[in-house]
Amino acid sequence: MTTPTLRPGGRSARVQESIHSAVRELLEEQDRASVTVPLIAARAGVTPSTIYRRWGDLSALLADVALARMQPDNEPINTGSLRGDITTWAEQYLDEMTSEPGRCMLRDVQAALKPSYCATIIGSQLQTILDRYPDEPKPDVYHLTNLIAAPTVFRILFSEAPLEIEELHRLVEIALSQ
Amino acid sequence: MTTPTLRPGGRSARVQESIHSAVRELLEEQDRASVTVPLIAARAGVTPSTIYRRWGDLSALLADVALARMQPDNEPINTGSLRGDITTWAEQYLDEMTSEPGRCMLRDVQAALKPSYCATIIGSQLQTILDRYPDEPKPDVYHLTNLIAAPTVFRILFSEAPLEIEELHRLVEIALSQ
Repeated sequence: MTTPTLRPGGRSARVQESIHSAVRELLEEQDRASVTVPLIAARAGVTPSTIYRRWGDLSALLADVALARMQPDNEPINTGSLRGDITTWAEQYLDEMTSEPGRCMLRDVQAALKPSYCATIIGSQLQTILDRYPDEPKPDVYHLTNLIAAPTVFRILFSEAPLEIEELHRLVEIALSQ
Repeated sequence: MTTPTLRPGGRSARVQESIHSAVRELLEEQDRASVTVPLIAARAGVTPSTIYRRWGDLSALLADVALARMQPDNEPINTGSLRGDITTWAEQYLDEMTSEPGRCMLRDVQAALKPSYCATIIGSQLQTILDRYPDEPKPDVYHLTNLIAAPTVFRILFSEAPLEIEELHRLVEIALSQ
């Protein structure tokens, strides 16, 4: 490090962030099949070999970007009630995952070294909600994830149509009535 | 056709079957990452261009083989009760999908033109079970798939560990008590 104002690893982190940004921009602008390592490198202002050295190949880079995007920007919305918080979270999750970027994320992230990070992120979001209501009877995070997140994701990956909103509400009711 | 004993399309179907067999054998013998189109072609006794012409690329061929394997060999086991049939089917599905070939199938099949065929296959298996008990109150196939197949698949693709068998039984109970 030549300047004391930079954190250790700062340059490396900045290179990574510019590459991630380039991927996100390109995925918004054009079809995913036409996004290549040279295109990403040109947009990020690095050489293709920088990308190959760090990620190995395009699918590993896309998986890395997808995992980073899975990390939500905010805490789950606080509506004042357990049922309200879970319903709102579930509806938002269904919306986001069903969108075209969400679908791509779900596919890309499976190429990551740790796709299981997905369940960890979902679990920590749901735990945040549950912790707001210490005195209410409620399901555990494992069961809640199986009842709400799993059908949402399954229908996107392996079915004609996304999960129906009435079915989502029904699953929330089941989760809360156990 | 030169011999009248062959069905129309027989040659094409035989070529396809020998290529599918070659893929299945190679996937059992070696790591998936090391299976290539030239290897498959050599095993099947065709030229690589036969494969590229028909499937376009390796991932489309793997997806096609995975979809064909998804099709179960038999009807769901008949235990004499609705609860027994569904529990047995669910346990078998959990076992098969959690196995290494099952995991690969789930990943490969997403590259297929119609991964939604999965939900169709599952639905038809579950419908076969439900139709055996016309006079009992029971869930519909859509709800049953969401409660049982979805968490099984979700845990394989996006979690550290497969679905716990106790949780699977709990989900079956929920499905049958609606």
